[in-house]
Amino acid sequence: MNWPLLSRMLGSLGMLVGGSMVLALPWAFPAFGETETFELRGFLGLLGAIVCSVGLGGLLYFLGRKETGSILRKEALAIVGLGWLLSGVLGALPFLFSGTQRAPDVPMNVADALFESVSGFTTTGASVLTELEKPELVPRCILFWRCFTHWLGGMGIIVLFVAILGQLGAGGKALVRREVPGPINESVRPRVRETALLMWTIYVGISGLLAVLYMLQRMSPYDALCHTFGTMATGGFSTRNASIGAFSDTPLVEATTILFMLVAGTNFTLYYLCLRGTDTSGPWYTRFAPLFRDPEYRVYLGVVAVVTLLLTVNLTWLGQYAEEASTPLGAFGLSLRHALFVTVSVMTTTGFGTVDFTEWSEFAKGVLLALMFVGGCSGSTGGGVKVIRFILFFRVVRLEIERAYRPNVVRRMRVFGLPVDDGLRHDVVVYFAIVLFLLVAGWLTLAAIEPDSAWLGSGDTPPTVAEKLLDSASAVASCLNNIGPGLGVLGPHDNYAGFSPQGKLLLTLLMLLGRLELFAILVLFVPSFWRVQ
Amino acid sequence: MNWPLLSRMLGSLGMLVGGSMVLALPWAFPAFGETETFELRGFLGLLGAIVCSVGLGGLLYFLGRKETGSILRKEALAIVGLGWLLSGVLGALPFLFSGTQRAPDVPMNVADALFESVSGFTTTGASVLTELEKPELVPRCILFWRCFTHWLGGMGIIVLFVAILGQLGAGGKALVRREVPGPINESVRPRVRETALLMWTIYVGISGLLAVLYMLQRMSPYDALCHTFGTMATGGFSTRNASIGAFSDTPLVEATTILFMLVAGTNFTLYYLCLRGTDTSGPWYTRFAPLFRDPEYRVYLGVVAVVTLLLTVNLTWLGQYAEEASTPLGAFGLSLRHALFVTVSVMTTTGFGTVDFTEWSEFAKGVLLALMFVGGCSGSTGGGVKVIRFILFFRVVRLEIERAYRPNVVRRMRVFGLPVDDGLRHDVVVYFAIVLFLLVAGWLTLAAIEPDSAWLGSGDTPPTVAEKLLDSASAVASCLNNIGPGLGVLGPHDNYAGFSPQGKLLLTLLMLLGRLELFAILVLFVPSFWRVQ
Repeated sequence: MNWPLLSRMLGSLGMLVGGSMVLALPWAFPAFGETETFELRGFLGLLGAIVCSVGLGGLLYFLGRKETGSILRKEALAIVGLGWLLSGVLGALPFLFSGTQRAPDVPMNVADALFESVSGFTTTGASVLTELEKPELVPRCILFWRCFTHWLGGMGIIVLFVAILGQLGAGGKALVRREVPGPINESVRPRVRETALLMWTIYVGISGLLAVLYMLQRMSPYDALCHTFGTMATGGFSTRNASIGAFSDTPLVEATTILFMLVAGTNFTLYYLCLRGTDTSGPWYTRFAPLFRDPEYRVYLGVVAVVTLLLTVNLTWLGQYAEEASTPLGAFGLSLRHALFVTVSVMTTTGFGTVDFTEWSEFAKGVLLALMFVGGCSGSTGGGVKVIRFILFFRVVRLEIERAYRPNVVRRMRVFGLPVDDGLRHDVVVYFAIVLFLLVAGWLTLAAIEPDSAWLGSGDTPPTVAEKLLDSASAVASCLNNIGPGLGVLGPHDNYAGFSPQGKLLLTLLMLLGRLELFAILVLFVPSFWRVQ
Repeated sequence: MNWPLLSRMLGSLGMLVGGSMVLALPWAFPAFGETETFELRGFLGLLGAIVCSVGLGGLLYFLGRKETGSILRKEALAIVGLGWLLSGVLGALPFLFSGTQRAPDVPMNVADALFESVSGFTTTGASVLTELEKPELVPRCILFWRCFTHWLGGMGIIVLFVAILGQLGAGGKALVRREVPGPINESVRPRVRETALLMWTIYVGISGLLAVLYMLQRMSPYDALCHTFGTMATGGFSTRNASIGAFSDTPLVEATTILFMLVAGTNFTLYYLCLRGTDTSGPWYTRFAPLFRDPEYRVYLGVVAVVTLLLTVNLTWLGQYAEEASTPLGAFGLSLRHALFVTVSVMTTTGFGTVDFTEWSEFAKGVLLALMFVGGCSGSTGGGVKVIRFILFFRVVRLEIERAYRPNVVRRMRVFGLPVDDGLRHDVVVYFAIVLFLLVAGWLTLAAIEPDSAWLGSGDTPPTVAEKLLDSASAVASCLNNIGPGLGVLGPHDNYAGFSPQGKLLLTLLMLLGRLELFAILVLFVPSFWRVQ
């Protein structure tokens, strides 16, 4: 392991994270942050975190300043894995330094702050804060930082880092490869810095568009920006207790959010291909051809459509919104609206809430729990297993069944006409198996850590201990797939505050595993990784 | 597809199943069956089933009598898959013809009978019968047949068929390969008929020993035989409502059952190697060297030990049996005894019950749910995924993690010194992934089929609807892994009677998928399997 190089890179990254905190500072002033007074506590907390981050980053950079060796695969893995850990730790400082309270008179402890910070960077959106709308508990500028971590993590801090630093050669490619979700088609990105810059440019552009749209719908700039971060990064942090539902008087905000969640869950490379648009002779819509020719995108939209339909039928059948709406048609419309929002929110792993889906039927909950694993497209900001892996997985299974009675047929696997090599096929199945194993292991550990008595608590309808296993499973699934809300005690309007500090740290680790697609984190636990040359 | 050959083989199998029903006939007479009168209903029911089975089998045999072609891989798959379906259907006839009642005045319908019969043959041991000890509801000879199906399915009806018929050449090998659980080491079995005969001889021998041991412990011949079938096939059907717990006045019956469940969950090839014992010079215990040199066997015993320890500590810590026992040491002893029994019963996929583990802590239940997937050794009568697949899976994962930072190292995988080829590695991961996919798909379908209201029923402690998802998941896991009892409404003292007919048929299909290790059943649903030459 090239330690000086590692130190220098991590130092740069630390300074980048510290520097980006500066953007949260202005929101401590009344003119921006929607508070009546200057938020001294939040301001000083952020300032302290900036000083610490830049200082630590500078020190690490200084220690490795003379190293000029290139980044190999091993260093790339270590930089991505440790870099995200470091970002999580530094991102937690503002919460701690400002004395943010997760409930009245309950300041956040180290586990809380780490959980919240990593939940932000990994775009999970799981929270331990119970009261967001009281600036005396959570300063508005801290809340801004919380949403901003989503946006940094969405397109990837390492990708941003490569875009800014550049000149990393093959090393940059190895770094980006580990951070961008999903199996990447290598040929698309010959020059990594240009690609990184382009991806971030597209990301900034679409985010800007969404922010303007939100503001046109009478959101304040503060709310508009924060919800843009949550939507575009498929994160799910909000500035309101009722999540995006606080703006649902007209269905327009909901519709905008649904559209942009779908946009964020799409492979960003496709937007690049659309923009480059070689064929400009036809009418305007031919520009979007690369999008709708993409097999993953088609399946992605197909799953959204099918699940929405299933849930709408289920909700209408059971008359979930029959009382709220006056007519049968109104009930159907309301069911469709809520089903579509929840489907897109869960599938893209955003986790915004408008309605409490824990009140839905058990079948609907089961469908949502399964949907958590699907996730967005590869190369999007969404989490989960990714649509393309499911497509490949089903192909592999079909091939294996055929192999049971036609053992000697060697068949090149094709997905929508494109050949898929054997290595990728194997990787996909391994990925599936590891994710499912982590789910079971994390679930059992969480069930062992958390006392049964926590489920015998109070509440409107006292939950029974029978819900513990299911809640734990959904918490693990939700964090591993970077979604946010789970079932039961973790519904979209409840949160993770009740878990023990150990439980929170376990879930934090799962979020990192999910965001970096396992290997950049897993290798950190392998002794031989640190020993070999 | 060679249809005449298929017909002839299925015909022979049908006659074999019908013929084996004859062995249940004597138990209708008071002298054998522990009833006071001759059980006319049971006797006639069995007789009718025999006539139908032998008749149908004979007809099928007659239709294909002239065909002499050899069995290829495709025919072998079809014979195993359809053969088990046929056995399940024929095995259900005695229940239907005798008018067996699953509860007072509720006769079994077709779905009930199929569920019970397939549950028997696949050694699952899941039941819809609520009252076993009333001969007017369930004739004793029918109960005998129910346990006997376990024993036939345990070592495999197809293996028995090959042992009796012989002369199938390579076809016999292909048949046995599809039925014996786990990935098989081909080189062990050069002459398939001899091996099949030998396996059955060992099976019969150990079963005879166990039956004698049970009788020495004052069980009647009837009870001894029925419980021998349940234990040796790792099935779990009993003749008592309290399962084997009805004989627990002394711990000796429990100890015997634990020992023989472990014996049944071991690879039977190892017993053959022990018997052949080339090294007879040393003391007597050197004969068992092949057993303890086997890596799978060591891991198998290791898992039993570790899980027992975990559960014992958990039960003692929570004082589960503190009231029942007078001293702390007594409570520890009782915890150990119950933990050991339940661990072995679940791990070997037997499913016998002595205590109700649904009253244990949520952590303990989670461990048991995960343990359901481990199962016995390959080549045993146990179900589940099999220990060897877990060993291989963990090796593959370790190799993949290493490959993330050492991409060019080509390493021959070794398990305890033995090389493992690439094909097997891939197969194992695919198997894992398919099992987990079937679990999720089965679980969602079951949750969709069964109405939520079924979970709002009566009972001592009325279950809440929150338990539905977990109960459904455990039912699917239990049937897919051929265990029997699940959690919640399906605990060892409850059963599957409450499910709808569609739900029962779904679970029946899962049992067959689990017992035949997926492919022999999956291919039946692929149109091209039936079309290709």
